[in-house]
Amino acid sequence: MDRLTVLYHIDSPQDEIAARAAALAVEQSVEMPVEAIAEARIHREVVGRVLDISPAEEGGFLVRIGLALETTGNDVGQLINILFGNSSIQDHVRLLDAEFPEALLGRYAGPRFGVEGLRQRAQAWNRPLTASAIKPLGLSAQDLAGLCKSFAEAGIDIIKDDHGMGDQSYAPFKERVVACQKAVAGSATLYAPHLTGGPKALAEQMEIVEGEGVGMVMMSPMLLGLPVVQEMIAQRLQVPVLAHPAMAGASRIAPPLLLGKLFRLIGADAVVYPNYGGRFGYSPQTCKELVQAAKTEWGGFKSALPVPAGGMNLARIPEMLDFYGQDVMLLIGGALLLAKENLRQEAGKFVAAVAAKEAS
Amino acid sequence: MDRLTVLYHIDSPQDEIAARAAALAVEQSVEMPVEAIAEARIHREVVGRVLDISPAEEGGFLVRIGLALETTGNDVGQLINILFGNSSIQDHVRLLDAEFPEALLGRYAGPRFGVEGLRQRAQAWNRPLTASAIKPLGLSAQDLAGLCKSFAEAGIDIIKDDHGMGDQSYAPFKERVVACQKAVAGSATLYAPHLTGGPKALAEQMEIVEGEGVGMVMMSPMLLGLPVVQEMIAQRLQVPVLAHPAMAGASRIAPPLLLGKLFRLIGADAVVYPNYGGRFGYSPQTCKELVQAAKTEWGGFKSALPVPAGGMNLARIPEMLDFYGQDVMLLIGGALLLAKENLRQEAGKFVAAVAAKEAS
Repeated sequence: MDRLTVLYHIDSPQDEIAARAAALAVEQSVEMPVEAIAEARIHREVVGRVLDISPAEEGGFLVRIGLALETTGNDVGQLINILFGNSSIQDHVRLLDAEFPEALLGRYAGPRFGVEGLRQRAQAWNRPLTASAIKPLGLSAQDLAGLCKSFAEAGIDIIKDDHGMGDQSYAPFKERVVACQKAVAGSATLYAPHLTGGPKALAEQMEIVEGEGVGMVMMSPMLLGLPVVQEMIAQRLQVPVLAHPAMAGASRIAPPLLLGKLFRLIGADAVVYPNYGGRFGYSPQTCKELVQAAKTEWGGFKSALPVPAGGMNLARIPEMLDFYGQDVMLLIGGALLLAKENLRQEAGKFVAAVAAKEAS
Repeated sequence: MDRLTVLYHIDSPQDEIAARAAALAVEQSVEMPVEAIAEARIHREVVGRVLDISPAEEGGFLVRIGLALETTGNDVGQLINILFGNSSIQDHVRLLDAEFPEALLGRYAGPRFGVEGLRQRAQAWNRPLTASAIKPLGLSAQDLAGLCKSFAEAGIDIIKDDHGMGDQSYAPFKERVVACQKAVAGSATLYAPHLTGGPKALAEQMEIVEGEGVGMVMMSPMLLGLPVVQEMIAQRLQVPVLAHPAMAGASRIAPPLLLGKLFRLIGADAVVYPNYGGRFGYSPQTCKELVQAAKTEWGGFKSALPVPAGGMNLARIPEMLDFYGQDVMLLIGGALLLAKENLRQEAGKFVAAVAAKEAS
């Protein structure tokens, strides 16, 4: 019988870890006293199993638990529920990683475009991709379109909405998308508006995106719900998806699992995450593991393109390219906007610095 | 101009707190260097403002930030994004509370049934309500329906699916709902199946729920996405909603805000949460604040009924009733199932113990 193998960190005194690990295996499977379960089949096939327990370097314990594949149904919402639904409420547990059996991977399609598809769209084969963001919230659609025009003229590959943008009165979705897409039309630049709201709002936004010939979209799976994003990608969207980490939390689900594996599993083509040394707390090691999860050979899925971001600037480009190599999208937002009236030139420097790294 | 007032806890040395608070106000509003913003209107109306900073009892600082209402658009996804989207990725920040202006509350309907509506459905006016759960995962639809029958005969008010149940092969949604609803038909007991999946799956499940005359549903807003749940409640569902805290996390968003306020705002009629002294880490104080948030006069909304759960048993009933009073739904799951072949009698004891507390 197929099982997921899930790795947790549990804070616990030595003399309680066996009991806590056993309790976690029950919590994430049958969630009831096992002595009340009469059916041998359920004990054998459904109840979670502690596979091993070992001391963690940083203190506490690493605990590996086997969970029945069938308990996830065929839904990514139930998948994350089985991985961490109730134990997310238990302060002493962190979700570190999970190994999924082939039978689970076979139920998902992963990225439809992936690294190669994005390169093809951007016509950029031998260099990292470049991206920027339009902001701040409060600008009109026309002002935002003006930023798009400068970025497109400078040759930035992808322009994304600020993730705070939804359908606010400052620059309503339709007006913004029409103006911004017009500003990039005729260039190789892709504009990626942020899709927000419930299913009805998302369907309306998709009609606008399709009607305007928009080349990419951004979604925040932890704001929208993983199942919604998965369904939209699998059944509706025709363009690549940039996933944003808003509400992804910091400390309880390891970022390589959530952003690298799960976002890729449901079909994100590129994944924004906070680079080390910026405004957020990810370490270089976390970034490396996230990239590995997004790009490694897995289930026959295409790779998702890593998009390190969050307080990056031109000065960091050489170091980031050394760290990440070619298969990366560099996203510099606010630091470009600081150039104000020289935005076009500053964006040009960004593009040139990346182009200079072109592999021969 | 309307502002939300948001309370955060920030871990910081004394000499950095002013800068960290200012950075948080920017992160959760314009998310870019403010010196790059030319428009005075945006500085005045959109950029977040630090309202006050004070030392927290447990160490660190309490920081109150004012955020522009208009940045939330009219979407609960963007609301939580503005409250905590990016700062959820910053380990040193926790979201404690938020005060919403009337103009925001006016955009939401809150619970459609609330405490009084649930009492009317259960025909229980002067006592706490009783609830249990059908489990474990792995039982067939017929076996689960058998549990429903015992609970209904014992007079339990509400029977919910285990939150691990979706559309697994053990007991597929349709088969389970048909069987379980049939088992409670003719009694005053409400059966609440767990709705899961993306918009398409949810729509199919809603058709089954409506076709079978099911009296209540359970949803996990943090698995499904807050915007999906809000839209379903506002535009589709005709029956009361029980909200489950799966994936609600433990340490970064204060439970009274997330489960008490936000789940109520989008229309949960009853809110399951881990009671103090059970398998989870909520303190009595957290439980009190959560109940207060769910029931206090707020925006003209109906109250949501608190459902303390998570390892409760018959022995705790008197103490819980002292603590919570009459307006509560007691949920005892696994502890009843331990009675096995005496389930009907044990559930009867639960009902009798609560009925004995009936107010005259």
